[in-house]
Amino acid sequence: MSTDVAFLGLGNMGLPMALNLVRAGFSVSGHDLVPANVERFVAGGGKTETDSMKAVAAAEVAITMLPASRHVESAYLGDNGILANAKTGTLLIDCSTIAPDAARRVAAAAVERGLTMIDAPVSGGTAGAAAATLTFMVGGPADGLSKARPYLEKMGKAIFHAGDRGAGQTVKMCNNMLLGIQMIGTCEAIRLGIANGIDAKLLSEIIGKSSGRNWALEVYNPCPGVMPNAPASRGYGGGFGVDLMLKDLGLAVENALSTNSSVPMGSLARSLYDLHSKGGAGALDFSSIFKMLGAPDK
Amino acid sequence: MSTDVAFLGLGNMGLPMALNLVRAGFSVSGHDLVPANVERFVAGGGKTETDSMKAVAAAEVAITMLPASRHVESAYLGDNGILANAKTGTLLIDCSTIAPDAARRVAAAAVERGLTMIDAPVSGGTAGAAAATLTFMVGGPADGLSKARPYLEKMGKAIFHAGDRGAGQTVKMCNNMLLGIQMIGTCEAIRLGIANGIDAKLLSEIIGKSSGRNWALEVYNPCPGVMPNAPASRGYGGGFGVDLMLKDLGLAVENALSTNSSVPMGSLARSLYDLHSKGGAGALDFSSIFKMLGAPDK
Amino acid sequence: MSTDVAFLGLGNMGLPMALNLVRAGFSVSGHDLVPANVERFVAGGGKTETDSMKAVAAAEVAITMLPASRHVESAYLGDNGILANAKTGTLLIDCSTIAPDAARRVAAAAVERGLTMIDAPVSGGTAGAAAATLTFMVGGPADGLSKARPYLEKMGKAIFHAGDRGAGQTVKMCNNMLLGIQMIGTCEAIRLGIANGIDAKLLSEIIGKSSGRNWALEVYNPCPGVMPNAPASRGYGGGFGVDLMLKDLGLAVENALSTNSSVPMGSLARSLYDLHSKGGAGALDFSSIFKMLGAPDK
Amino acid sequence: MSTDVAFLGLGNMGLPMALNLVRAGFSVSGHDLVPANVERFVAGGGKTETDSMKAVAAAEVAITMLPASRHVESAYLGDNGILANAKTGTLLIDCSTIAPDAARRVAAAAVERGLTMIDAPVSGGTAGAAAATLTFMVGGPADGLSKARPYLEKMGKAIFHAGDRGAGQTVKMCNNMLLGIQMIGTCEAIRLGIANGIDAKLLSEIIGKSSGRNWALEVYNPCPGVMPNAPASRGYGGGFGVDLMLKDLGLAVENALSTNSSVPMGSLARSLYDLHSKGGAGALDFSSIFKMLGAPDK
Repeated sequence: MSTDVAFLGLGNMGLPMALNLVRAGFSVSGHDLVPANVERFVAGGGKTETDSMKAVAAAEVAITMLPASRHVESAYLGDNGILANAKTGTLLIDCSTIAPDAARRVAAAAVERGLTMIDAPVSGGTAGAAAATLTFMVGGPADGLSKARPYLEKMGKAIFHAGDRGAGQTVKMCNNMLLGIQMIGTCEAIRLGIANGIDAKLLSEIIGKSSGRNWALEVYNPCPGVMPNAPASRGYGGGFGVDLMLKDLGLAVENALSTNSSVPMGSLARSLYDLHSKGGAGALDFSSIFKMLGAPDK
Repeated sequence: MSTDVAFLGLGNMGLPMALNLVRAGFSVSGHDLVPANVERFVAGGGKTETDSMKAVAAAEVAITMLPASRHVESAYLGDNGILANAKTGTLLIDCSTIAPDAARRVAAAAVERGLTMIDAPVSGGTAGAAAATLTFMVGGPADGLSKARPYLEKMGKAIFHAGDRGAGQTVKMCNNMLLGIQMIGTCEAIRLGIANGIDAKLLSEIIGKSSGRNWALEVYNPCPGVMPNAPASRGYGGGFGVDLMLKDLGLAVENALSTNSSVPMGSLARSLYDLHSKGGAGALDFSSIFKMLGAPDK
Repeated sequence: MSTDVAFLGLGNMGLPMALNLVRAGFSVSGHDLVPANVERFVAGGGKTETDSMKAVAAAEVAITMLPASRHVESAYLGDNGILANAKTGTLLIDCSTIAPDAARRVAAAAVERGLTMIDAPVSGGTAGAAAATLTFMVGGPADGLSKARPYLEKMGKAIFHAGDRGAGQTVKMCNNMLLGIQMIGTCEAIRLGIANGIDAKLLSEIIGKSSGRNWALEVYNPCPGVMPNAPASRGYGGGFGVDLMLKDLGLAVENALSTNSSVPMGSLARSLYDLHSKGGAGALDFSSIFKMLGAPDK
Repeated sequence: MSTDVAFLGLGNMGLPMALNLVRAGFSVSGHDLVPANVERFVAGGGKTETDSMKAVAAAEVAITMLPASRHVESAYLGDNGILANAKTGTLLIDCSTIAPDAARRVAAAAVERGLTMIDAPVSGGTAGAAAATLTFMVGGPADGLSKARPYLEKMGKAIFHAGDRGAGQTVKMCNNMLLGIQMIGTCEAIRLGIANGIDAKLLSEIIGKSSGRNWALEVYNPCPGVMPNAPASRGYGGGFGVDLMLKDLGLAVENALSTNSSVPMGSLARSLYDLHSKGGAGALDFSSIFKMLGAPDK
């Protein structure tokens, strides 16, 4: 029986994404270095096999969802990697969040081997992965994206074509740097209001209709109690972790160094998330910077 | 003949605001230290008289629109100031942007004299003042706001009641600090995207539908050419000046010092606007920080 | 019997300073709001009386060592304050660390009353106060300093005349802002070296002979174990507290706002000490920022 | 005739260093991509030959002084590079300032080929290079340093052994990051003092004897007129350029990202030098940040 998709990386994001493809009727072979992750995937209806590269060789589409640039480079460029094993015509989709230049390097090597590749990092978190409501930011050729759409549409609901190879990573990097900056700015503004006796909810409502409005304030308010469903109102559990934001801000600062770009606020945002993580908050939601700006718990 | 309103401060903002009251049919006596401003007001249909305090004594409502805390304190608390001259029952409305604690001080003195006062700073800029589309952020008693509404509604279109005396200033201070932070963050994100080969307009559109979205990006884009009507597309002329943003960020940093609030990003934003101003850009629109982050003009 | 000195403020600094004057043979009347402090002073040989202003009225010299600007202004300018009670010819010496403009205001009021006043803030900490090795940074007229020397020399060993009234405060403010910046920079440099496998002591020695050298690195090394006598080698106890550095950086940032000075690094240093204090480290020595930059204790 | 030294890189630093070896009696073959640099070296008494790798193959010692990591990696690791051409027993000395991990990579490859290599970046600038008063910060084996001493001693006067391979680069990186931070801090402190009416020279003298003292303040004062021989007193010409400091701070920030080190002040210092360079000051001495903090020239 034929395999449509080889899916490499069944972590917190990859597992629900791959299962959504299974539910949509695709034949998916799932792979991960952690056996328990593979077992969960198989329990959910997925297939697997001992040698992931056999699955890649048999697939129409190979999708990767891996932690960082070095894992992606190793998976694609390694001696017995994806580029060495994929058959002609296989579509390659990397959904990992990595450095734009790493994405460009891998895609260039794929093209040299006659393969089509797109970078398609996501936003929306584990909740979006489970609900198939992710946003994909895509870089690569238009025909690659066309071929990828039937798969992406089963895992997410918004797909943006940002430009050539690496452009998906660039847009995600820029978006998340801005998000990190705004989240801290929002925490500062609400803290300042509270210190002057203003109700945080009322303040958020007024700013939300004014020139200070932004996604973090309106949708993901960092002050406990303002939004019942936001991580702030459940002890900053779940959500998008401090260490993940720290990783994304690190990609932005590193990229800025190599492209001679100026990111003073992005750099400070990274420093603040770094100190927050070193203070022990790495696993909390990134809106918990609100806590860091306040007096110590008694 | 009776005078409804004594209006003190006919500068870039005050003049169009006062003229909107005249157009709405109110009898308005306008005053300013600069004779040319008064002449413009009279040419537009307003009244004036030699002694502004006589106008205050005759008015139902006194409105002030002055540059900074010290002018407001002097105008209200001076020996021959507004509090000393207003008759019982006069409503006092300060539309200036000043420090929240200065606003609280003046309002407390007004209450001691048996007068009702609200702080009602605005956002919307000179264009909003001319078009009567300003937003008012109001602090003070609810009955004061009720009495003020008929006047405020002729000068703006949105009115928020933020809380007790000083609350209007607090909300504006928090909003503008956040706006200043977001504007710089937006400039950094777009610069970073461009340095990676992404089209600024496409990048702005995608982020505008994602978690990095904010007012500066969506409504007031700082990259030339992205929005034809934004100051960025006309050489950063007009709009909200660097030095005005610098003043507002100064109010926020000063307030944070006295309230033991933490504003690391707000402080850096102030430092960057300060350096931008010292580099000669004080009169440009505040989105011109985009220029500062780029290579020198050749 | 005549009283030479009225000493107001017998806290951690004031008490040992006043006792050094007693040991030098001066007749000193000591005063503090906390009775236990006065008791310690009397136990050490000092005098006191119920009404501190009687002591001021009887003294040749009045010395103040108080926590902040508002206490100094109140002590000197209050209705029943020092200026109202001091007899003609009394020399006024304020050793508190306060805002330069507050120092100028108080000194101007003293001059109006025909009194000579100098601002003489100190550095050297409680150890320097006990050992009479403080450094005085003095602002005010040269003849005021001449008259003050016999007293200052019993409490410290270095005396710098920085200029007119307020100049002592200005120099201390500038010095301490620079110290705060350098301490954090030194912590960062040593942390960075350690992360690259360099021995902290060797690194400190080499930098100490190179262009990165500074007082914090050479005399007060923030890395535990590098200097046996530094606070870092005794759990950051004693020394100059985080909250005191935070106060001094606050004076600098506030002064920069009012003098239109640019202090981006000073502002960030204040933000970092602020976050360190909010994390619970306010009472530790200010070199403990080294801890904040490291991984959480396990 | 035998060749003692092959010297690659005859730029602003390399040329005077190589000429000092010539003057000391060594037989030195000099090489550079810019013919004019080679001509100057030959005019000064040096030798050269068409193929630099022939010179390397004939030399006892190969010394490199190149702009950045990628040049050093290419020179040593390239197919026809130094490692491929040096004979057994040749000592390799890299005096370039590069990333510590690049230094470690190259040295590891040298060891694999059986060659001894040290990293020996310098401080002291072009003046120190000309006067043979450079400071060398050395990483690598002790016997490598022993063999290198006779050469280094002709080019400099202080030699520090910082540890294993890469340690020289690490120490220089840490030192220069701290220097960059202190220079800006010093500029801020002096600006703040001036704004409060203090004489810059007097202020520098007092701080120079207090806890704010540092090399930049004492030896390289950034305020025009305080030190007649400092770059500040000659329009910020000569000295150590803004773009060189920017490069060194970039190495530090990049290294901090990869070693999970926290450098909030180092990051801001880099951002400020970056903005200063983008404002057109890249070629000025790095103390010119003093100018950036001041009002625009009229």
